[in-house]
Amino acid sequence: MHTLDVALGDRAYPIHIGSGLLAREDLLLPHIRGRQAVVVSNETVAPLYLDVLVATLARGGVSAIPVILPDGEEFKTWETLNLIFDGLLANRCERNTTLIALGGGVIGDMSGFAAACYQRGMPFVQVPTTLLAQVDSSVGGKTAINHPLGKNMIGAFYQPQMVLADVATLNTLPDRELRAGLAEVIKYGLIRDLDFLAWVEGNLGLLLNRDPTALIYAIERSCRNKAEVVAADERESGERALLNLGHTFGHAIETGLGYGLWLHGEAVAAGTMIAAHLSRGLGWLSECDVARVLRLFERAGLPVRAPDLGAARYLDLMRHDKKVLDGRLRLVLLQRLGCGVLTEVATEQQIVQAIEQGCT
Amino acid sequence: MHTLDVALGDRAYPIHIGSGLLAREDLLLPHIRGRQAVVVSNETVAPLYLDVLVATLARGGVSAIPVILPDGEEFKTWETLNLIFDGLLANRCERNTTLIALGGGVIGDMSGFAAACYQRGMPFVQVPTTLLAQVDSSVGGKTAINHPLGKNMIGAFYQPQMVLADVATLNTLPDRELRAGLAEVIKYGLIRDLDFLAWVEGNLGLLLNRDPTALIYAIERSCRNKAEVVAADERESGERALLNLGHTFGHAIETGLGYGLWLHGEAVAAGTMIAAHLSRGLGWLSECDVARVLRLFERAGLPVRAPDLGAARYLDLMRHDKKVLDGRLRLVLLQRLGCGVLTEVATEQQIVQAIEQGCT
Repeated sequence: MHTLDVALGDRAYPIHIGSGLLAREDLLLPHIRGRQAVVVSNETVAPLYLDVLVATLARGGVSAIPVILPDGEEFKTWETLNLIFDGLLANRCERNTTLIALGGGVIGDMSGFAAACYQRGMPFVQVPTTLLAQVDSSVGGKTAINHPLGKNMIGAFYQPQMVLADVATLNTLPDRELRAGLAEVIKYGLIRDLDFLAWVEGNLGLLLNRDPTALIYAIERSCRNKAEVVAADERESGERALLNLGHTFGHAIETGLGYGLWLHGEAVAAGTMIAAHLSRGLGWLSECDVARVLRLFERAGLPVRAPDLGAARYLDLMRHDKKVLDGRLRLVLLQRLGCGVLTEVATEQQIVQAIEQGCT
Repeated sequence: MHTLDVALGDRAYPIHIGSGLLAREDLLLPHIRGRQAVVVSNETVAPLYLDVLVATLARGGVSAIPVILPDGEEFKTWETLNLIFDGLLANRCERNTTLIALGGGVIGDMSGFAAACYQRGMPFVQVPTTLLAQVDSSVGGKTAINHPLGKNMIGAFYQPQMVLADVATLNTLPDRELRAGLAEVIKYGLIRDLDFLAWVEGNLGLLLNRDPTALIYAIERSCRNKAEVVAADERESGERALLNLGHTFGHAIETGLGYGLWLHGEAVAAGTMIAAHLSRGLGWLSECDVARVLRLFERAGLPVRAPDLGAARYLDLMRHDKKVLDGRLRLVLLQRLGCGVLTEVATEQQIVQAIEQGCT
């Protein structure tokens, strides 16, 4: 097992990465106060992993109250969030009850937001069961739900007590979701870790074949990158924005198509290609660089062409982005491979051109 | 004008108290970034004070986007909160847009929660227009909405950038709301400021007649008490709980009767009487003390008898209280007048007896 720390002072917490961690009461129980915990999961994950987690808690004398939500980005709404509040209140959960999120990014984001808001804040633990959640969304304390006009528009910065990433849960992950998770793995290489990008290129076959050693390495190095960025800039006043490479375009894809049609990682891959085209347009990346990124996404089975919503629609959707400041679109682009930058230098014309290059 | 500071380090902010402050662009404009601000108000307050606030902003070149909500505790819900999010998104508000809450406690609590959640946090300013909001709810960063099973169950600790308390707005406040605000004023005397309690007893006539000097003094001294408590214990791990004298019983009244039937301050007054009876039952207050509290509430025109929901229903409702810890009801009681204490020593039998004494 590997353990990393997210260095956030009095909100610091560990990330444990390894196989079979769902059964490790020695890791879980120090974070549970009292004799009850709430486990939020979804209809897909609960049949697979709820029992083992409940048994682990039971060995420590903790009874689990399950709250099972429907599965999918399209349910990342207030209505679904309210099912968590209803469960918490119906079971008279107190503000020191621990909420455990068992699932992918949607479950983690919604559960974290519920924990942030219930009685103005209750402790919570992330148990991510998808590659995307293990390498990205479970770490760093961004929680949210979607609004029809914009993804992750309503949320909170709220850190978990612990992240428990059990790679054994990836054995049941559909291929499409595994690939979606790789989009965020590749992201770390592109924005700040060129050696890791090369490692992913060299080990993509092992990752796609779910080699546990390769997966653990990729998760640990991704989390290490994320933990460093989050520790330096918890509330995204600067560097943290780089983690959103491809996300401004990607969120436009997700919102524009309707939540749930494309997976988040798929939208990020296609969005990152637009960002790469734009970086090329600014003279920062070479043709070769762009081709290298495209080839890696293609080998990972990820979309490299965004849906053709029309450039005007993209711009309209992107103006809701959280990085917009004083009316100016700020985008994460690549100064070179391995070096992301948050910038406003691209003109609307350059952005439109990149969107057109990146669309089918 | 009086100015107090809430000493919260990098979240410190001023409270300005005086007459005619809505017209003071020198106070407002330093807190507005960009050329747009959102003003959230309700159907009662907006016709009275929105224009003057909009004009003040306009003199500084800031255009105001109004979001007008229905008026009343029964609208302190997710559905109403969503009207704020809809307004923010429809107007493409960014996360550095300032949200201004113009109204009483319901507007302040909901607007603050909306500001805490929109794009994971935008700046906000409190412009309280009721006595209750000026002496209590606008200060300290507690924001929330209600859930059918419990008042203020979903919310955040989120501090404003400034509180602007214009006592001129109290001239249009209905008598019933003025009296409700006095319940929170009296609370500060009871829990930590016996001299202030005596002052309120001696100046109640002036307060009820809306004497501006008396009102400003009462607001300033209340805010000073609140600011001291909040600075010492922002997230209610200890002393801050004392501010909830009468609130555990009071919230049970509000939730039990249905939100909006009793004003919050009315429920707090009747709830404080139950707390006083219980403090008497524990031998902490004398008959005389209890009579003194009762007489003051009566003179203020506040209810001193709680609705008879039955003791069992009270206990049931109270078990949702945010101060419940490890299944134990923790209550704010009075060790003596001027000295509140958070305690679990009362037995269920003693609590039941106090409820019966405090009910009609």
